[in-house]
Amino acid sequence: MGVTPPYSIHVASNLLGSLARYIDETHIAIITDNTVGRLYAPMAKDALAQAGKEFHCYCVAPGEQSKSLASFEHLLRQMVRDGFTRSAAVLALGGGVVGDLAGYVAASFMRGVAFYQCPTSLLAMVDASIGGKTAINMPEGKNLVGAFWQPRAVIIDIGTLRTLPTKAFRHGAVELFKHGLLANERLLESVRAEEFQPGGPPDFLIEAVAESAAVKANIVVADERETNLRATLNLGHTLGHALEAVSDHALPHGEAVAYGLYFAAVLAKNRGWKDLTPMVGDFLQWVQPAPLPTTEFERLESFLARDKKRLSDRLRYVLLRGISKPVIVDDVTLQEQQAAWMELLEVAA
Amino acid sequence: MGVTPPYSIHVASNLLGSLARYIDETHIAIITDNTVGRLYAPMAKDALAQAGKEFHCYCVAPGEQSKSLASFEHLLRQMVRDGFTRSAAVLALGGGVVGDLAGYVAASFMRGVAFYQCPTSLLAMVDASIGGKTAINMPEGKNLVGAFWQPRAVIIDIGTLRTLPTKAFRHGAVELFKHGLLANERLLESVRAEEFQPGGPPDFLIEAVAESAAVKANIVVADERETNLRATLNLGHTLGHALEAVSDHALPHGEAVAYGLYFAAVLAKNRGWKDLTPMVGDFLQWVQPAPLPTTEFERLESFLARDKKRLSDRLRYVLLRGISKPVIVDDVTLQEQQAAWMELLEVAA
Repeated sequence: MGVTPPYSIHVASNLLGSLARYIDETHIAIITDNTVGRLYAPMAKDALAQAGKEFHCYCVAPGEQSKSLASFEHLLRQMVRDGFTRSAAVLALGGGVVGDLAGYVAASFMRGVAFYQCPTSLLAMVDASIGGKTAINMPEGKNLVGAFWQPRAVIIDIGTLRTLPTKAFRHGAVELFKHGLLANERLLESVRAEEFQPGGPPDFLIEAVAESAAVKANIVVADERETNLRATLNLGHTLGHALEAVSDHALPHGEAVAYGLYFAAVLAKNRGWKDLTPMVGDFLQWVQPAPLPTTEFERLESFLARDKKRLSDRLRYVLLRGISKPVIVDDVTLQEQQAAWMELLEVAA
Repeated sequence: MGVTPPYSIHVASNLLGSLARYIDETHIAIITDNTVGRLYAPMAKDALAQAGKEFHCYCVAPGEQSKSLASFEHLLRQMVRDGFTRSAAVLALGGGVVGDLAGYVAASFMRGVAFYQCPTSLLAMVDASIGGKTAINMPEGKNLVGAFWQPRAVIIDIGTLRTLPTKAFRHGAVELFKHGLLANERLLESVRAEEFQPGGPPDFLIEAVAESAAVKANIVVADERETNLRATLNLGHTLGHALEAVSDHALPHGEAVAYGLYFAAVLAKNRGWKDLTPMVGDFLQWVQPAPLPTTEFERLESFLARDKKRLSDRLRYVLLRGISKPVIVDDVTLQEQQAAWMELLEVAA
């Protein structure tokens, strides 16, 4: 399945085997991590070799620590030594970490070369690989250095989900579910289906992934820079980021956002808008998040206020007037947030 | 004097004193080097302070070695620690090195913030500050990592030329003269005038700088990415780069390009096109370049062929059919180049 141009997203089974057809360039830097590379780099290399392409494959350690300036430097220098020029292409084969790092390498090598995303986690498929955000971390914080650099194509081989741990699958499902809330009600049914699991039927997963990716692609195409439309993608992320921070990143991002989605649903319900808390609550249960960090709201509030979406003493949230009806509200009071926090604590208990 | 939008280039006397009027943002990172910073940072800081702007000033060591990943990292981390956000602005105050480094910092900090160029060398005023090319060096070579990132405005205080060493002024004049050859005959007269020197009359220098900057701006606006039109800016640079390389960068860039301009003029003359060698020869003499590296053409050729503009066994050059008539030719034979090299050796002897 494809999404309308200018965003070229391909979702199918066994796509790694025909990778080369999506890549115009003849000299390709595959960037992957040791875990994904061991599983899927051989298929990618075979496909490129059979098409007569030249390539080099670079493996980084799995995990967030590879989104570093040291990895960035290592990859760039290695590419120079391996003879890459400005007609190179960079192919990210892996999850969000690999995509962010490889994308920033592509954006920076000789002031920018062609970039292709081959996401292998559900989160990367429906979220991180789409939108052109690339970045590395600094000791002072995450994603502080990077570029907007669009991939020429996002090539999604649904078969790579089979090796994804259930927990990681659920983390990706949170963003897929969020896309359902924002713009596609069918996705909300997909996540409830028995087939929605790493080893589920390919056709079912292809449809869900393609629809979720399309939600994000349509939003970022309409709004390449982060302004109002793109900001609706922050649904669930305001509280989510604060929970991650307050837990010192012990609570995984996907689980923090799942809590954040419920929190946003409560805020909307308490304004008298459509009550989505039963459905979001069911989903939250399915995610099986780690326990909610036990904290006074006052402590959480200091992290909420640090969020870049802050505006005076009231806070900005993305809320839903209903399914597919996101609105950005700038006037959520402390009282509203405190009340919603109490309700979330009850549900999570 | 200004150039038509979208390129905002301001050239005047005492512009540093009214710097703030060109900068919308309220938190500004001034990036400069110790030499320029000592001379002009106080003026820039005063101007920003008077306008109620908040700023931090970062000084790097003067010279090419500051275009490093280490400087890049240091500046980015310092900006985070000093509280800069994505609404920051970066102001480059200095020559080409500072502009390239600061521009890449601006392109990368939180995926890109506003950028302003305040060039203080003639070369940076008429060439490096315009076009959006930013970069740092790697041990493997120059400008290997960077971004295209356009400045919101180029703010040229002509008074900063007064402190520019004569030699650096002449190096900048080479690009100004090149712009004259490519598109503005008046510039060819300007460089012959008595007033054309670092301490020359401001109005005279303002006009020459503004016209030269406009030549480059018009070309890059018409052709933001490096394709055919922008490639004409490589006039003189094919031999120039080879001379720099063959001399192990002992021959300064400006002087190498001056030789390259003469070489290109000889190639054109020998094709029966307009003979610009007398005029370019006079200019070459004015530049007072270091002696031409004594080398066999064969050795030079290996560096010429390494140039990215290579095409099969014939080489690509920008040549002039006449003043303001650049053409890109792909079929310059070894024999033609050897003959031109002999003529250049004679003139340079």
